[in-house]
Parts: sequence; C-alpha cells; structure tokens
Amino acid sequence: MATLKQVAAHAEVSVQTVSNALNAPHRLRPDTLQRVTKSIELLNYRPNRNARSLRTSAVELIGYCVPSWPDGQAHLVMDQFLHALCTAAETSGRHILLFTAPVGVEGMPVYEDLHARRLVDGFVLSQTETHDPRHGWLKEQQIPFVSFGRVWKETTQPGPYVDVDGAGGCAAAVRHLHETGRRRIAFLSWPKTSGLAEDRLSGWRAACRELGLPTDASLAVRCLEDTIDQGARATAELLDADPGVDAIVAISDILALGALRELTRRGLTAGVDVAVTGFDDSPLASVVSPALTSIRQPMDQIATELIDILTTPATPGVSTERLLQPELVIRGSSAPG
Amino acid sequence: MATLKQVAAHAEVSVQTVSNALNAPHRLRPDTLQRVTKSIELLNYRPNRNARSLRTSAVELIGYCVPSWPDGQAHLVMDQFLHALCTAAETSGRHILLFTAPVGVEGMPVYEDLHARRLVDGFVLSQTETHDPRHGWLKEQQIPFVSFGRVWKETTQPGPYVDVDGAGGCAAAVRHLHETGRRRIAFLSWPKTSGLAEDRLSGWRAACRELGLPTDASLAVRCLEDTIDQGARATAELLDADPGVDAIVAISDILALGALRELTRRGLTAGVDVAVTGFDDSPLASVVSPALTSIRQPMDQIATELIDILTTPATPGVSTERLLQPELVIRGSSAPG
Repeated sequence: MATLKQVAAHAEVSVQTVSNALNAPHRLRPDTLQRVTKSIELLNYRPNRNARSLRTSAVELIGYCVPSWPDGQAHLVMDQFLHALCTAAETSGRHILLFTAPVGVEGMPVYEDLHARRLVDGFVLSQTETHDPRHGWLKEQQIPFVSFGRVWKETTQPGPYVDVDGAGGCAAAVRHLHETGRRRIAFLSWPKTSGLAEDRLSGWRAACRELGLPTDASLAVRCLEDTIDQGARATAELLDADPGVDAIVAISDILALGALRELTRRGLTAGVDVAVTGFDDSPLASVVSPALTSIRQPMDQIATELIDILTTPATPGVSTERLLQPELVIRGSSAPG
Repeated sequence: MATLKQVAAHAEVSVQTVSNALNAPHRLRPDTLQRVTKSIELLNYRPNRNARSLRTSAVELIGYCVPSWPDGQAHLVMDQFLHALCTAAETSGRHILLFTAPVGVEGMPVYEDLHARRLVDGFVLSQTETHDPRHGWLKEQQIPFVSFGRVWKETTQPGPYVDVDGAGGCAAAVRHLHETGRRRIAFLSWPKTSGLAEDRLSGWRAACRELGLPTDASLAVRCLEDTIDQGARATAELLDADPGVDAIVAISDILALGALRELTRRGLTAGVDVAVTGFDDSPLASVVSPALTSIRQPMDQIATELIDILTTPATPGVSTERLLQPELVIRGSSAPG
C-alpha cells in the first residue's frame, strides 16, 4: 500500500498538503486539491490510522469519569445525562472522553495521567465529595473543570458547578400537593449523612411552613437504603402512626415506588387516597400505574451550562455557580384523571 | 508566562526534548532531564494546553455512540456497560470517545467526520439494526469495528460482534424453574417485530420441549410496551385464562415487576405460589421484594471481548462472533427462603 510520503512525492506536494487534502480540503487551492486527490486514487492510498501526527483537528476533549456505584444502586438517568453532555460538547465543537477512576485520592493518578499526556483539555466532575482532592489539584494545574453537583458540608464551593435546586424541587412538590387539597404531607428521606437529602428535606420543610402545614418530626421518615422495600416499610410505619397523612413527597423515584406498593397493599389508591411524588423523573416514573409525579432534572440545560462554564474564560460578573430549577412533572400518582 | 520555546532555548535543547521531559521523561538522559526540569522551574513554565502538536501519546480512541431511546424507555444497565467498556479499553491502553449520532443513514456523516478527522481509531457499535448502514461503510473504509449485539433478520452477520445468548438465558431460567418443581411455565414477551424477543422466546420453547413441559401458544403472551403496567395486565390475562400457571419467565425486569405487582394484587406470593424471573439483572431486580431472579449479562466479559476483537488483527481460526452465556441470578421471586 502506498504511503503518505509516496503520495506527496507523486503529487509533488508536501506531506502536510496531502494531510490537508484528506482532512481540511478547503485549505488547498482547487488545482492542488485535484492533483493530490488524483495521486491518492492512482496510488490507491488509504490513510494510515496509526499516523497520530496526522491528527490535524484541534478538537478539544473533555474528560468525564463514568461514575461507579455500590452494588444494587442505580443511576437510572445516566444515559439521559450522557446523551445531553455529549450533545452539548459537540455543539461547542468538542467531544467527551470517558474514563474510569477510583473515588478519592486513589483516583488522582488517573487525572494526572490524562492531563500529562494531553489527552483531555478539561474535566466535568460528578460524584463530588466533601474535601474532594480533585478541585485543589485541578486549580493548581490550571486545568479547566466544572462539577455537576455541589460539594456538601463545606462553607464555600471549591470550584465552579452546575446543580439542580433539590430544595426548590421538593418545595414545588409540596405546593402542588397543597393546591390539590393535601394538608398533611410527609417526606420520605435518606439518612442524615447525605447532604443531598438534607437539602431536599429543607425544601419540604420550608414550603410546608410557608403554607401553614405541619412539619412534625414524625412526618419526615428516613430510609436507610434507596430500595422499594425500604420505601414501602417507611410508608407502612408512617400510615400506621399517622393515618391522617394524605400525601408523601419521596426523595427518589425508588422510594416513591415503595410508597405506591404499600398503598396498593392497603387497598388505597395512589393519587386519590394518598398522593405520592418522586424525584428524578427516571424511566421508572412512567412504567408504574398510576404513573408517578416526579421532579425532573433539566438534563439538557445542565449539560449546556456545564460545557458553557468549562469552555468560557472566567469573566467578572458571570457566575460559575449555577443552580437550575427542576421541573415538576405531574402524573396520576398526585393528580388522577 | 514562559513558552515552550523559551524553555528549550534556556535549557539548550530542542522543543521536542522539553516535550519529552514533560510527557516521556524516561526517554531522556538523566542529565538532560535535570537541565530541562531546572529550566521549567526557573522560568515557571506551565504546559500550554492548547499546544495540540504536543500530544505525544499515541493513545488510540475508540468511538462509542451513546444510545438514545424513545421517551420512557430505559437502558437500566447503561452505567454498568459503560464502566465495563471504559475499563476494558483502559486495560488495553485505549480510551473511549463518546459521541451522539442519529440512528440509520442520517447518522453516517457523524461517523465519517470522526474518521476523517482521525479522532477515533475504531468503533464499538450498539443498537444495530437490520440493514444497518454502518457496517458496509466501516468495512469499505477499513475501519476496525465490533458490535455489541447481533443484527437480526439477516442470514449472515454483517460484521464482528459480541452478544449474549438470550435464548440460552431463558432456557436456563426454565430449567431452574423445572428443578424447583414448576410444571406450567409461561413467557412474557415483546411484540413479534423484535428479533431479540424471538430469540429469547425460542429459548423458553426449546427448554420446555426438552423437559416435556407445555408450550401452548396461550402460554406465550406478548406485551406491546416494556412497562410494569403491561406486564401486570398480561399476567392478569394469563392467570385468568390459565390458573394452573405456576411460573412466569419475563423477557425483561420491567415486565417481571408487572408480574410481581399482579401477583401481590391477587394475594398470591411470588416465589411461593407463582415463580417469576426477569432479564438483565438491572438495579430494579434487587430493589423489589421478594427480590427478582434475573438473567445477568456478563458486562465485564462483554466489554473485554469487544475490545479484544476491536484491537486484535483478524487471525484465521479466531472467531469474531462471540456469543456469551448470561448468568441466572437466583433470588426470592423463584426460590424463597
């Protein structure tokens, strides 16, 4: 098979010109392009995939670490997020390089290596943790980055982020339930160690107070695990102790599914006897019956803002902390008929 | 800030040597490395992220199009698959470039562009379709590729693939149910238009025949959509028409969840009165109670084989069509206690 050099010699041009003919033909004069194309055809030249140096495009790659979750845990909107992130990156002329890395300091060599080898030009972080080692290192190396999600339990955010206002979402659910006549609204939560859970809980509490609804401690129930079983058990305890509960705001779709199951078991109709809402608007929300009212994270907007922050030089007056409002998607579990 | 050229001049070496000091220090003589490092420090040089030509690594990138699904459909094991795929690629010294593209011929320009710009060195395909335009083009361009999943309704496979033996998985479920004393085993399926569904159905039918169990047409029920609701409705019809059914093999975890719901509604205990199995071992399988017996696709092995086929030159006698056996994960829905 002919080499690039042979094509260049045959067409009496430089190797770079042949490369341009293949990758950026608009850069060549038409007669040059024609001559090179003819040589390529005559010599039956096929671009050598391994000729790394020919990678002419200046496409920037953005690194994203595919999250890993403990067994049994799910990231049910992962494909939606990745699709949105790729689309936003591509709209800005960039691409996503996916990689894996351990959580915490153990993962740092992966980030260092990707940077040292110039494989990526910046990072979108997720699964951020309190005292996350990535932020300091990225700042020190002057590598652009942005987080999807705030870091909890720190007084200031360690870097730019895009997040969804979980408290606002839960408050919107409470207001919707209040508008449809519910007056004793419970909250199914996760353990107190979760900053995310405390944020969402605070939204429920604030909205209930604002509307003059009860916020008794007994109305906020914590589930140890994010399972249907735990959601059902918590709902059973809740309704046993307090039969007056007429609505349940669940912190996740999975816990909401548990609430639905327990209602069915008791012969109660979700949406009629007790209203239920979830969080994430995962694919689960529409596969159950009645379909689940849920709080949707605006994935396209999240992705667009992430790429925007990542690729725009810091500008005074333009915040790199963006809190987006989720959307309450109302379905039969809270508004039958 | 100092430039690479200034550092090179200061250290009296070439620009390439400075680049090597940063990216491949083992290539330099110790005294050269020391001199360059000193110059870098003295001039406070920071590598310029935009110096594309400095991308010294010859890391190959593998393109993977993030699947998009119609509204409400879910790819519940997407994060598991991507994690496995990245890990396998990284083990072989490669990385995954994620991109989006429309399905069918409309997506071809995306593939052509990624190739023309030398952004990727090969592709892992999924969501393959009958008469998929990608295979022919990839072969013509001599671009390495491999599909996750067979192409249905073609006499020969149009390219290398790794797939999971869905028929074998369903047959294993039938055999397990037979061993635990079930004698009238139904099958919850998708519409006939799905090649995947026909494959899995054939496994149920073959195993039932082999064991002398009934395979009446009425025992194979088709659901129009992959929803819990449809699974519950089909289960209701099945049990109304044939109360002797003592086990249900569902083609998906979602349909199996519907079967579980209908059993609960009838006061029947899953695993005791009627056994139920799902497919995919998605995160749903362990969040329900009783937990769902399900057929797990061996994600790590799938990913390893995909990368192996993609990165190994074709070798006579080594098949590039690999059908892996899924694993039956037995839980309470078919084996209580």
